[in-house]
Amino acid sequence: MLHLVIAEAELELVPKAILDHPAVVNHARRRGKRPDEILLDSTYHHAAIKKLPDGERRGRPDIVHICLLNALESIANKEGLLRVYVHTRNDEVIYIKPETRIPRNYNRFVGLMESLFKNRAVPRDLELLRIEEKSLGELVEEIKPDGIFVMHEEGELIKPKDLGKMLGELENPLVIVGGFPHGDFRSEVPWKKISIYEAPLMAWTIVNEIITNFEHWVP
Amino acid sequence: MLHLVIAEAELELVPKAILDHPAVVNHARRRGKRPDEILLDSTYHHAAIKKLPDGERRGRPDIVHICLLNALESIANKEGLLRVYVHTRNDEVIYIKPETRIPRNYNRFVGLMESLFKNRAVPRDLELLRIEEKSLGELVEEIKPDGIFVMHEEGELIKPKDLGKMLGELENPLVIVGGFPHGDFRSEVPWKKISIYEAPLMAWTIVNEIITNFEHWVP
Repeated sequence: MLHLVIAEAELELVPKAILDHPAVVNHARRRGKRPDEILLDSTYHHAAIKKLPDGERRGRPDIVHICLLNALESIANKEGLLRVYVHTRNDEVIYIKPETRIPRNYNRFVGLMESLFKNRAVPRDLELLRIEEKSLGELVEEIKPDGIFVMHEEGELIKPKDLGKMLGELENPLVIVGGFPHGDFRSEVPWKKISIYEAPLMAWTIVNEIITNFEHWVP
Repeated sequence: MLHLVIAEAELELVPKAILDHPAVVNHARRRGKRPDEILLDSTYHHAAIKKLPDGERRGRPDIVHICLLNALESIANKEGLLRVYVHTRNDEVIYIKPETRIPRNYNRFVGLMESLFKNRAVPRDLELLRIEEKSLGELVEEIKPDGIFVMHEEGELIKPKDLGKMLGELENPLVIVGGFPHGDFRSEVPWKKISIYEAPLMAWTIVNEIITNFEHWVP
């Protein structure tokens, strides 16, 4: 089983500090929601986000959305060989059942995440997605992997297919992919760092390379 | 060079027959546009789309969006080894320069496509994207590939890595992936049909498998 963590994902509700910023208030009103119920989104809250620490990278639910659509619709997931987790910048972990059908439409995905932050699990009966307060370290301990790889621009350069082979030779490998647009992990990632290309790649590109190359080693 | 065509994509402006449907009129008004300027979108025009022929599969700009994000951010594209085209149900072809940075936000992508349908090229100076009236057959003739593969549920079953090898051994292979949510191609696709999995896959999953497995055969 391959465990894939989208880590330090820029997925959060609008933080208190900018709840009364006009960009946030107006966007919330247009959507018929309260400012503290909506996801932070750099496309709409740009003017407000600039005032936050790490403002240049925050508010990117789109990255999580594309990574999840690719991972959950992959052959590996259909074969029951993949578990995907989203760890956020605020040390929350979203558990996703493999049979979950993530909304294809971005705006519906945003609505689903807002409901998840509010209700802690969606839908209430099936709990296809649930969220818990948890650090990346705690999640790693819980998964008990027999190999941990952090995808990192400064990691050891290795071809995607060779990474696939390394993953395929383990029972429970864990791969950590940063769920942010650029820059480095903010917290410690004291595990083996790997790079699959000499230039930066988008999170979803790395997700695709990992999963499709892992699949080769499945009988 | 690998040529990838997202074919018969469900990408179109709202058709005349439903321009005055309340679902369309209200959605256009909310967006501050005229009904004939907006993309058909099953998420918002569901009640109207049902009245159209093939209504159950139309209005899916999201499929094109995700396929393009994956293709254009792939290692193959960064290496200059990929050309991506979108062919629509109305026999239009969108040419995309490899250096194009597709908007990550879905709503911005929709706005870009609307501008493309209106102005035939965007941005006007660089023409990163341009659209022409052209059938799939005409596009194939123009590309002059030395091998053509149609991804098809009833095609010959072949492993993704073996397809990658076949593509890697050609100079100018062309792969055609259906840009619709389910069902079959509506027009003739008189080329070799290939399947990479025993169950249906989403268009973007097929795109990811093709590109990452093709990359293995690049020196």
